[in-house]
Amino acid sequence: MNSFGRVFRVSIFGESHGISVGIVIDGCPAGIPLEPGDFEADFSRRKSGAKGTTPRKEPDVPRLMSGVFNGRTTGAPLMVLFENTNTRSRDYSQLKDIPRPGHADYTGHVKFGGYQDYRGGGHFSGRLTLGLVAAGVIAKKIIAPARVSASILEVGGSSDIEAALERAMENGDSIGGIIQCTISPVPAGLGEPFFDSVEAVMSHMIFSIPAIKGIEFGSGFRAAKMTGNEHNDNILSPDGTTETNYAGGINGGISNGNEIVFRVAVKPTSSTHRTQRTLNMATGKMVDLTVEGRHDTCIALRVPVVVEAAAAMVMADFMLQAQEVKRINESKSE
Amino acid sequence: MNSFGRVFRVSIFGESHGISVGIVIDGCPAGIPLEPGDFEADFSRRKSGAKGTTPRKEPDVPRLMSGVFNGRTTGAPLMVLFENTNTRSRDYSQLKDIPRPGHADYTGHVKFGGYQDYRGGGHFSGRLTLGLVAAGVIAKKIIAPARVSASILEVGGSSDIEAALERAMENGDSIGGIIQCTISPVPAGLGEPFFDSVEAVMSHMIFSIPAIKGIEFGSGFRAAKMTGNEHNDNILSPDGTTETNYAGGINGGISNGNEIVFRVAVKPTSSTHRTQRTLNMATGKMVDLTVEGRHDTCIALRVPVVVEAAAAMVMADFMLQAQEVKRINESKSE
Amino acid sequence: MNSFGRVFRVSIFGESHGISVGIVIDGCPAGIPLEPGDFEADFSRRKSGAKGTTPRKEPDVPRLMSGVFNGRTTGAPLMVLFENTNTRSRDYSQLKDIPRPGHADYTGHVKFGGYQDYRGGGHFSGRLTLGLVAAGVIAKKIIAPARVSASILEVGGSSDIEAALERAMENGDSIGGIIQCTISPVPAGLGEPFFDSVEAVMSHMIFSIPAIKGIEFGSGFRAAKMTGNEHNDNILSPDGTTETNYAGGINGGISNGNEIVFRVAVKPTSSTHRTQRTLNMATGKMVDLTVEGRHDTCIALRVPVVVEAAAAMVMADFMLQAQEVKRINESKSE
Amino acid sequence: MNSFGRVFRVSIFGESHGISVGIVIDGCPAGIPLEPGDFEADFSRRKSGAKGTTPRKEPDVPRLMSGVFNGRTTGAPLMVLFENTNTRSRDYSQLKDIPRPGHADYTGHVKFGGYQDYRGGGHFSGRLTLGLVAAGVIAKKIIAPARVSASILEVGGSSDIEAALERAMENGDSIGGIIQCTISPVPAGLGEPFFDSVEAVMSHMIFSIPAIKGIEFGSGFRAAKMTGNEHNDNILSPDGTTETNYAGGINGGISNGNEIVFRVAVKPTSSTHRTQRTLNMATGKMVDLTVEGRHDTCIALRVPVVVEAAAAMVMADFMLQAQEVKRINESKSE
Repeated sequence: MNSFGRVFRVSIFGESHGISVGIVIDGCPAGIPLEPGDFEADFSRRKSGAKGTTPRKEPDVPRLMSGVFNGRTTGAPLMVLFENTNTRSRDYSQLKDIPRPGHADYTGHVKFGGYQDYRGGGHFSGRLTLGLVAAGVIAKKIIAPARVSASILEVGGSSDIEAALERAMENGDSIGGIIQCTISPVPAGLGEPFFDSVEAVMSHMIFSIPAIKGIEFGSGFRAAKMTGNEHNDNILSPDGTTETNYAGGINGGISNGNEIVFRVAVKPTSSTHRTQRTLNMATGKMVDLTVEGRHDTCIALRVPVVVEAAAAMVMADFMLQAQEVKRINESKSE
Repeated sequence: MNSFGRVFRVSIFGESHGISVGIVIDGCPAGIPLEPGDFEADFSRRKSGAKGTTPRKEPDVPRLMSGVFNGRTTGAPLMVLFENTNTRSRDYSQLKDIPRPGHADYTGHVKFGGYQDYRGGGHFSGRLTLGLVAAGVIAKKIIAPARVSASILEVGGSSDIEAALERAMENGDSIGGIIQCTISPVPAGLGEPFFDSVEAVMSHMIFSIPAIKGIEFGSGFRAAKMTGNEHNDNILSPDGTTETNYAGGINGGISNGNEIVFRVAVKPTSSTHRTQRTLNMATGKMVDLTVEGRHDTCIALRVPVVVEAAAAMVMADFMLQAQEVKRINESKSE
Repeated sequence: MNSFGRVFRVSIFGESHGISVGIVIDGCPAGIPLEPGDFEADFSRRKSGAKGTTPRKEPDVPRLMSGVFNGRTTGAPLMVLFENTNTRSRDYSQLKDIPRPGHADYTGHVKFGGYQDYRGGGHFSGRLTLGLVAAGVIAKKIIAPARVSASILEVGGSSDIEAALERAMENGDSIGGIIQCTISPVPAGLGEPFFDSVEAVMSHMIFSIPAIKGIEFGSGFRAAKMTGNEHNDNILSPDGTTETNYAGGINGGISNGNEIVFRVAVKPTSSTHRTQRTLNMATGKMVDLTVEGRHDTCIALRVPVVVEAAAAMVMADFMLQAQEVKRINESKSE
Repeated sequence: MNSFGRVFRVSIFGESHGISVGIVIDGCPAGIPLEPGDFEADFSRRKSGAKGTTPRKEPDVPRLMSGVFNGRTTGAPLMVLFENTNTRSRDYSQLKDIPRPGHADYTGHVKFGGYQDYRGGGHFSGRLTLGLVAAGVIAKKIIAPARVSASILEVGGSSDIEAALERAMENGDSIGGIIQCTISPVPAGLGEPFFDSVEAVMSHMIFSIPAIKGIEFGSGFRAAKMTGNEHNDNILSPDGTTETNYAGGINGGISNGNEIVFRVAVKPTSSTHRTQRTLNMATGKMVDLTVEGRHDTCIALRVPVVVEAAAAMVMADFMLQAQEVKRINESKSE
């Protein structure tokens, strides 16, 4: 349930304000050079601190607890651990009974019968994405020379991102955003016809990231307004290069060798400074709730590196699976 | 690879112009009444023949080859077989080397090294969704009283569907569409925090349907333009009912007891009457291609019942999994 | 639940006296030559008719319903169907309530709440192994030049098989047997350290065959009586060849390049001519039961080809997985 | 690859002489009381120190890094970590090139291309079973009132265990043993007809434990020498109680409500004081190898608690799966 992948397979664990968060990465090939410093660049992109993100500084120090020896992966499971040190010991007992609208407090309570760790979102926290980013760093090494690149297209409906952030901060409000991710160069032939189409597996992984509300590939929702004559991508050359890329690099669920393109919608941060109506589950009465503390004005700003990690993991898994097909095809089909 | 689900698990097989298509359904509880007539209503919704769909009449006669005894499911795998009878013996050898733009001809060729059944899309054909609809009929029985309902919101960018179809047919062109699906009533607590969130598993299944380019839950892409104060759904009552439903019935990946709502974008049918440029893979030269025969002007019209089936299967799987958690929680947590 | 394998993945369905039995084989590489005649040799080894087996002649005609095109596998799921034609329409209603000792009648009733197809063992029947043998025929092609070979070591405790059979037939009784299976040549490096060790996956598959009561690898139960100085296999050459093979070709769960050897115990056929005491589940009273018809005196005689098929499937799955590791190791570890 | 289970799912990681070993347990129901002291009894049974086991004292202190809150499981993944502290910094570089006969040194080298952590067996080490025992402690709580109990039947072919150990120690040799495991009371109806039969899943898990060479259920290999009239277990009462238990509590792969019984063979410890012939993989030449240090004379003595843990995990997984079937059967089959 907390695992994903067929060959390159990750399992996450942890709670925001518990002892630790982390990830186990299984199926990573042996011999890949890996050291703690390799994580820094992506971790700093995920970090808060920039304009529009919460000032809380989390000390994201990865500990490689297994699977690495003499600076290289061993082929055994790789466990990356982050011990939580910046968890203030303030009183969270209010959260136990009063679910914050837009958060998983209510659903977590129902699902786990009140036994969930409710502090700071617990196991539902965005802090769990730290493990995903760590796995993404390794996945990116596996898929090279393919490169995954995600960036913000717009926030709060505007591509003038600076202005949109300032407006939201003035209002004590939060805003959402749209992220575009591209992957290139991609070999043709990755993915499977139906249930494990590239779109299917990619969307599965992407929706594992908190706050994502939609995903579209290539032309996406615009395709619904187009005609077939406009939409078809003419094939231009024997290597499968197409004139346009409305397909987003995928036909029939299989990569066609062109750039893979998708966009995701990120909802506005649920925590704002506004007082909201909600339920006290202990008393069954309605109450006013003000979520204290400092929040990300636009959590979307921190999501691109998580989307990249997720996409890299999916591609690593597909590529590792594809080796076998190719080899067998070569050796048996004579 | 051609299987999906954890407890309610389906495996599809078959080719459009081969001997058969079908599905194996494993994990179906024993004792559910089932007879061939139960499939008729949904099969006829999927069928071609209406305005905007191809006039080809497929005789979709399901044969229950296993798993049913004395009119009820037995708990053993249920195999539903459709033998292909309407496969005209015309010459498909042209398709072998000349991939149709927008189809899986090129990617199938690359993936399977030229050994794929290329006739009429082969294993990539939309005809495979017949099995999904069959499994959906059974899944709908499992999830009752929850009801899944999908319908067309717009085609070719217009909600005047009749007019949009006529315009496209006049132009010998095709158009896409948007489908909305709702599920209700849904118990709170289905789904898992990360990789098996309701959105993750649902999108995985939905993107298995050919021609889908995007999916969004609740507010979807609109969320990216909203503020947090607008977007949060205030909780109104102890049963979790919310004032608005921007979340689409899901928080933190878990159903919150409100209606689940999502929309999918369907691209325009790839086959139109236009002559297109493409590649002859045998000669490596560019050629003109006109895809003959009669096509769906708007394949989206036939997709709602497939979306319903997919959604029902996902819900059945979640509900079967949820039984166990509930029972254990009840018995152990004292 | 009725599926097995990670890359080479099979799903079985069907009932002994229902409409059909069969198997879906997913993950089979494209381009492997395959025709109905390929199944004949192994099917005839599984068939009844020889001394000590039931005289019932089953017409085991495989229909390749998908996944084969122009005489080769396509890479899409391969469905092999066997329609049941020799199911006499006699009255099975007695079996509904009176479980035969040693059979799955009682457990099937409990598990499926009385809805199971109880005729002739239903889904529990050894007839389901027909699908396994079919998949084995394909798996054997994948693993070549590795060869799987299983044969009877002894029946009823005696290696004079002819005599043991005659004695049992005179007594109207049945006997069990021991089968040995060897696989060679096997590349070193297949399997995984713990849960997917060669022994773990092989035993999982082998115990899926009805009537198996034990499995041992290499020295097996004899190892428990040996000393370490006797048991260690000295390594003789750089290719890993060992002096002895007490390990059965596996160390730490991974194939070591020597012959893989295992033995399985098959219990005596449960149906004999003796009258037995059992329960009438409808009345809750004890009754006498005589199982009519003709039975295999020694079902073990028909099992070697099923063991071979099971072993070949496991090896095919491991080998298809191994390709990827090798390739990645080669390309990344510089 | 390093994971096992469908609902109650474990993932192991770590190396004997690396930084840590541990386990992630997913699918554990919420609300189960758990504290570090709960592990002590089983950990001490697994520990070395008794006669016939190595005197090395490992400080097996479990750290519950996630999934526990206020002394109860939360329903989120439970990670149990053991940091390695007693790893002497001696020179292991000899082991890099010279594989110990009977160990996984050679196969690990081949599989992981020389990148594996070769110190003390690395990821192949029996130290990894510490995580299994931890998971077993939790699984035992889930399956109560069912109780799993494993004990030594014989070592070195003798049931006078004391004498057998002394004889082996005098010779500087090692010996194997046979362990019997029983589970009771077991509800009827657990397991699946073929691939997920109780025997199949149990043997899969049991062969994950290092040094196991064979497994047999009920009559086991003795069944091969019995006749059907002897072997069938007469059913005595409506609750399925049988007169004998040659079936070992399982018919057709499904638990029949009687005690589940199986035996496993453990090979003699591979490391003895004898000098052995083996290969230097770096030079390709044969060399003499003496494995220094103190070894378990009979590793089998430490295995019963690991077998118990493995069996408890399998039962927990089956029982959690069974809840759902039961509930659905009850609610739908009217």
